[in-house]
Amino acid sequence: MPVIDPVDLAARLISVPSVTPASGAVFDVLDEALSGLGFTIHRFTLGEAPDGPTENMVAIRERGPGPHVGFAGHLDVVPAGDGWEGDAFTARIADGRLVGRGANDMKSAIAAAVAAVSAIEQPSGTLSFLITGDEEGYATFGTPRIIDWLNDRAIRPDMILIGEPTSETRLGDTVKIGRRGSLNFWIRTRGVQGHVAYPHKADNPVPRLAKIVAALSALHLDDGTEAFPPSNLEFVALGTPTAASNLIPGEASAQGNIRFNNLHTGDRLIALLTETAQAVDPGCEVRTRISGEAFLTPPGKLYELVTEAIRAECGIAPELSTGGGTSDGRFLIKLCPVVDFGLPNASMHKVGESAGVDDIETLSRIYRRVFAGGLEA
Amino acid sequence: MPVIDPVDLAARLISVPSVTPASGAVFDVLDEALSGLGFTIHRFTLGEAPDGPTENMVAIRERGPGPHVGFAGHLDVVPAGDGWEGDAFTARIADGRLVGRGANDMKSAIAAAVAAVSAIEQPSGTLSFLITGDEEGYATFGTPRIIDWLNDRAIRPDMILIGEPTSETRLGDTVKIGRRGSLNFWIRTRGVQGHVAYPHKADNPVPRLAKIVAALSALHLDDGTEAFPPSNLEFVALGTPTAASNLIPGEASAQGNIRFNNLHTGDRLIALLTETAQAVDPGCEVRTRISGEAFLTPPGKLYELVTEAIRAECGIAPELSTGGGTSDGRFLIKLCPVVDFGLPNASMHKVGESAGVDDIETLSRIYRRVFAGGLEA
Repeated sequence: MPVIDPVDLAARLISVPSVTPASGAVFDVLDEALSGLGFTIHRFTLGEAPDGPTENMVAIRERGPGPHVGFAGHLDVVPAGDGWEGDAFTARIADGRLVGRGANDMKSAIAAAVAAVSAIEQPSGTLSFLITGDEEGYATFGTPRIIDWLNDRAIRPDMILIGEPTSETRLGDTVKIGRRGSLNFWIRTRGVQGHVAYPHKADNPVPRLAKIVAALSALHLDDGTEAFPPSNLEFVALGTPTAASNLIPGEASAQGNIRFNNLHTGDRLIALLTETAQAVDPGCEVRTRISGEAFLTPPGKLYELVTEAIRAECGIAPELSTGGGTSDGRFLIKLCPVVDFGLPNASMHKVGESAGVDDIETLSRIYRRVFAGGLEA
Repeated sequence: MPVIDPVDLAARLISVPSVTPASGAVFDVLDEALSGLGFTIHRFTLGEAPDGPTENMVAIRERGPGPHVGFAGHLDVVPAGDGWEGDAFTARIADGRLVGRGANDMKSAIAAAVAAVSAIEQPSGTLSFLITGDEEGYATFGTPRIIDWLNDRAIRPDMILIGEPTSETRLGDTVKIGRRGSLNFWIRTRGVQGHVAYPHKADNPVPRLAKIVAALSALHLDDGTEAFPPSNLEFVALGTPTAASNLIPGEASAQGNIRFNNLHTGDRLIALLTETAQAVDPGCEVRTRISGEAFLTPPGKLYELVTEAIRAECGIAPELSTGGGTSDGRFLIKLCPVVDFGLPNASMHKVGESAGVDDIETLSRIYRRVFAGGLEA
């Protein structure tokens, strides 16, 4: 088996443009590397513009009984934007950093994981790569379809490490063990527009909206948990379509967001929202959109493996966080425990995105420890 | 003494442009007519653009002891606007109607009152004309200054007839005996803008605003009176300066209006508004503007004189109304009972403003009866 250099592979992945949703050539590079390591490659491309075509890859190396350790990531990147020195899709090394779109989020982490696998023994158990071409977009044809693919074949990892750039000021300082869910909502009350001097000919929707806003703001969702802060509802906007001093408006609207922990589900919160609002005004309109469900990986082997590997390579104890933006962990948690851990994310999505060469190499060694430890029965 | 023709005098007044605020030539026409009838004329011009210069005229004819009957009106008019057949400021008669800006609101009524005075005996008592050049604008230098002028000289009418066009479908159908007051208000709550995911770093002003809106909407102001409907508060607008799904806004605002009867004063309502809002949020900002106080002329001699004169000349019993827009009665009520009565107002402020010649003549006879009756001790 060849031993793979993570920085070299990362540079090759970066040098194939793959703005979300991605498919094709960038997957070919990864396909070649993993095939060379004895992985069986399954690729499937779904959807049409604008949410597709999206390619997904499941690469599996099974060597008899034992735990199944998965690594999840995405090969799509956000657009380059203007202002790069040189081509965003031609990787280069400057001042000890690998520079290019995707260097941080997250082609280098995928390369680090492939390099890690190339450097370990695997006497038994299963290793897999679950790689999507749409994590940065709506993910319509992304990781949820990988999960379907696995479920159809009764393949279920025992743990999944996600290579998102979770570190903050230095490599190893932060591991994500879950995320809050996020629910956006819009409430509209309707009335009859009219002149303030003739209120009997009108029906003002504003007081009803105010009561709904007050009632929802007064909801006590929970007190938080050891891993999560209390779930929280915030209104972000109020509005009426008119603002004349003598005109009762015909409608009034409010917009809000709930960040919720794993004591709730989006659907149950929608039911609570709707019930609370309609108790005030049965005719009010409630629209909602769940951006993601809350999830938490329970303490266990994956926690310990990641924490111990970081301690060994970086000499620090990571913070186990549930903060920040979401990841495909919100989907993968349905399969097994998941933990996100990767590079310091200061340059993520920015012009001049980069990753320290040393960090990529250290990350690869951390992943190697996690994979090796995970494969031990 | 000359007997004055009301239509002729109205035409002469119309033919001197006097868009609000007015002074000068239009007052000269009236000055000449009233001087010729033995009135002592006091004219004073106040203010500068844009609220001035505004001319006011107090014309008094005192013939010994007895009641003082005042007539109030304004010589300013609203702008002509486009679309007139011919010049808006050249009076003409067409189809039995006197046409021109101010024919309806309210030069014809002033002319009718002057003609009425020219046709009656005045063995005793006092007649006065209280004429301003700014009723259509903010009245900064208008009727309030006439009241000051009278107070400075300890002159106090016993009753004042205001010549505003109060009739609706036919002359005599409606007399205004009072008006609701109007109070505009704006409420703002302030907080600290921030990301919805980090509510501890922000302070959302929306729930506090909602509670204030709900509390103010729940106020029961009164049950109305025989003359007035219940006082009523309406919100006309809600707003936040931002509307992003992840951003807690830094402030939130609501705008409303109260139409109130004479059980309230603007100042007491402002105190109630402020107290109610600040009970929810002591830091909230409450801004207000009183457009006019409520007023009601108590039943009495002026009521009876006007009603009886209309019955005699028109054969109908007028409705005694407190509806519609305000007039300088809101100021004059501080002196004595006031009643507004004048022409049918369908063309008021419109292009092609006009008054029926017959109506002007009938109105003059009604005014004659009111003046004559009012002068009787």
